[in-house]
Amino acid sequence: MTTVLKLGGSVITHKTEHETIDETALQTATNAVGQRVDGSGPASLVVVHGGGSFGHPAAAAAGVSATNGSRDVTALVDVHRAMGRLTERVVSKLDAAGVPALPVRPLSLVRRTDDTVTCPAEPVVSMLAEGFVPVLHGDVVVHEGAGGTVLSGDDLVVALADALGADRVGVCSTVPGVIDDDGTVVPEVTDYEDVAAVLGDSEATDVTGGMAGKVRALLGVDGPAAVFGLDELESFLDTGDAGTTVR
Amino acid sequence: MTTVLKLGGSVITHKTEHETIDETALQTATNAVGQRVDGSGPASLVVVHGGGSFGHPAAAAAGVSATNGSRDVTALVDVHRAMGRLTERVVSKLDAAGVPALPVRPLSLVRRTDDTVTCPAEPVVSMLAEGFVPVLHGDVVVHEGAGGTVLSGDDLVVALADALGADRVGVCSTVPGVIDDDGTVVPEVTDYEDVAAVLGDSEATDVTGGMAGKVRALLGVDGPAAVFGLDELESFLDTGDAGTTVR
Repeated sequence: MTTVLKLGGSVITHKTEHETIDETALQTATNAVGQRVDGSGPASLVVVHGGGSFGHPAAAAAGVSATNGSRDVTALVDVHRAMGRLTERVVSKLDAAGVPALPVRPLSLVRRTDDTVTCPAEPVVSMLAEGFVPVLHGDVVVHEGAGGTVLSGDDLVVALADALGADRVGVCSTVPGVIDDDGTVVPEVTDYEDVAAVLGDSEATDVTGGMAGKVRALLGVDGPAAVFGLDELESFLDTGDAGTTVR
Repeated sequence: MTTVLKLGGSVITHKTEHETIDETALQTATNAVGQRVDGSGPASLVVVHGGGSFGHPAAAAAGVSATNGSRDVTALVDVHRAMGRLTERVVSKLDAAGVPALPVRPLSLVRRTDDTVTCPAEPVVSMLAEGFVPVLHGDVVVHEGAGGTVLSGDDLVVALADALGADRVGVCSTVPGVIDDDGTVVPEVTDYEDVAAVLGDSEATDVTGGMAGKVRALLGVDGPAAVFGLDELESFLDTGDAGTTVR
């Protein structure tokens, strides 16, 4: 069974402090992953993390976004290196927690067009087959006709889950799932329209901690995908069930 | 026309000084590449560099080699990060010389078995199509059944030239080519046996600055491959002809 786990950039960094790890949150997350991987044989776990206060300010400073491409390699490499500093910390923390983590840089691997994201599965599958846990992240990637653009961790998760035929997808977020008007976590979402009232319509500016975008993206995943908070990460890794399940 | 250019690790670093760039040599090399790429349209150039005093000591300390694999991610990541420090410098110098260089980390892309090295072409081709110059390097890569092993820059050049169907391959080395007993550069080698007398037989320990191994590897490339010194780099980039041509 292959699991793709996303650790939100806002979870593992202090979003408003420049390139600052949330050490407590990252430790909690890496411990949870370490407990699941330890001694239970081949993990078949892929970790993806977001950019938080590393990637987002760097992308803004470089003038690059998901839709605004650049051919200025100084700008593209600045964003890539900011994400390199973050992923180095994540990989080291996972290693310290007993997770055989190896870094995979999306700029080296992934390419996209306006409509598609192509992530070759073989390099990641080879790592899994040797018992490693590949760690990927939101990054700048080559964008056909536009130079390079930002590929978000969420969009990477969808492309990767598809390429790998992942059995489980989990997105560990700063919120415990999709929350309805009563403040209750909605256990399951199968159609965007069912939650549009609480998330806003799909064209609206995303002011719900990225939840509208996450749900829209995760509805495109073949298998079930869970969105949950950090305190449910262990539960997700154990059972696949946590927060809101999008299917 | 696609060119794969290898910059030897011994050329761009001081081989005996720990993680020390040969700034003069690297500047000469990046200027030569910059002159060729500047203003002449799509470059279709791929740069590969060796490990020099960054990769080799790190691999020795980690106990990893081309044949001695490891599943210890701390060791593997140590080697990968040492190469990351070198390639960051190479990419920045190329950028400063006007080359639209983007880093590609082989650990993210390449996998191998005892007999084969598989380098997917598409990510590199996508960069070339957008006008970028991909920069790769010797690295640790996933090795089927052995965890991770070292993939030399020379072996990467051969796999990459094959994957890309490269028209020209050049290896910029510390020596001006294959040198015969009279101290003269041999202009062309088509059969290892013709130069075995000056390079040693193919099973012997390689004491010729890696030249025996280079020639053996380059005889496996489809097109012509040149081995030359730094002062012939411009000539190679202009004409494809420099030092010793192996075909």
